[in-house]
Amino acid sequence: MKAVVLLSGGLDSSTVLYQAKKDGWECYALSFDYQQRHRRELEAAAKIALSAGVAAHQVVQFDLRAWGGSALTDLAIDLPTERSLQEMSASIPITYVPARNTIFLSFALAYAEAIEAQRVYIGVNALDYSGYPDCRPDYIQAMQEVFRLGTKQGREGEPIAIVTPLIDLKKTAIVELGNRLGVPWEKTWSCYAGEELACGVCDSCQLRLAAFAELGLKDPLPYSFQS
Amino acid sequence: MKAVVLLSGGLDSSTVLYQAKKDGWECYALSFDYQQRHRRELEAAAKIALSAGVAAHQVVQFDLRAWGGSALTDLAIDLPTERSLQEMSASIPITYVPARNTIFLSFALAYAEAIEAQRVYIGVNALDYSGYPDCRPDYIQAMQEVFRLGTKQGREGEPIAIVTPLIDLKKTAIVELGNRLGVPWEKTWSCYAGEELACGVCDSCQLRLAAFAELGLKDPLPYSFQS
Repeated sequence: MKAVVLLSGGLDSSTVLYQAKKDGWECYALSFDYQQRHRRELEAAAKIALSAGVAAHQVVQFDLRAWGGSALTDLAIDLPTERSLQEMSASIPITYVPARNTIFLSFALAYAEAIEAQRVYIGVNALDYSGYPDCRPDYIQAMQEVFRLGTKQGREGEPIAIVTPLIDLKKTAIVELGNRLGVPWEKTWSCYAGEELACGVCDSCQLRLAAFAELGLKDPLPYSFQS
Repeated sequence: MKAVVLLSGGLDSSTVLYQAKKDGWECYALSFDYQQRHRRELEAAAKIALSAGVAAHQVVQFDLRAWGGSALTDLAIDLPTERSLQEMSASIPITYVPARNTIFLSFALAYAEAIEAQRVYIGVNALDYSGYPDCRPDYIQAMQEVFRLGTKQGREGEPIAIVTPLIDLKKTAIVELGNRLGVPWEKTWSCYAGEELACGVCDSCQLRLAAFAELGLKDPLPYSFQS
């Protein structure tokens, strides 16, 4: 029984991969090289896929830089740093990439159908100030309908099911879950910047560090700045 | 007012582009280089985009050949030829590419949101033996929900709307529509094979030739074989 697991190499998707493995699935990791600002994420994804012992790890390449519109792919937009957690929750952040999860889930669906997998795991999370429209339960439900109606497998048999183990979890609960599952945190990468050390001040680093701190745990990843 | 138009360079999508133009939209054509068996389609798309006077024509590249599973991308699978129209309608054809329209519409959604377009035009058609699950109205409706829930624009204002001018039309009605709109048929490409001349015997050529013949029209595209 096969599952496709969307793997960015971050804390969330790494935890999801270990959960899928624990759920008993043969895991096929899927990552994307969409000309993100840096390669650290993809390197982390490769390390985590190896650690988890996946059956295969595919990387799909595409390039959306020509379109602009997001701080994660457009070098002309400055990354937000040192914002308070409250500021983060106020609106859809500029790190939002238009339709990113829709593109990711579409490729996951294609991959799943091609290898006859039964599940697609994705680490979306509707809490913790993410603010992304394509991380919410009603959106996932809509994609599930697309999975059912848009494929041969969904029309003729059992649709491929989207599994979202983290959707209702706070970041602290995700770190607790990952700890129980034995996720090697030092191999993951969350920082929006792509320096040798994680920056410690971008939204993503701040959320991660706050979760470890709240649990009284030490994040084994080295940071260049830690408040 | 902007519309993204999915353009393969075939008869259907070319007609849709001319329809979008007639509807008064500034058109942004979007094509995909997904390592199809041949480049004739993309060359046709470029010619048609130029003829129609689009504001821009983007080509997104990605590669799914590693996954296999379709005669359109997998060179190990033979293309069907000389099947009767009845045989074509019997089942989902092997030219089916898993989740293809879902991937195409996802990129169209990203592009539309990035350029602040209001419409996405797609030449899906639920009739004429297409047999593809991702060409049917209930599937398009499910994607429309994804467009609404999965984007900043859909959450905060008017969702980007999917327009399917051909969904209920028979192939003959599409050719009549294209004629009225002045589509330059000689610049389009429908053949699944990628030879210098269209083959005339694959499913796609047969459907096209049958439609022109039924209308008593001559297809200006040269064919290597015509029954």
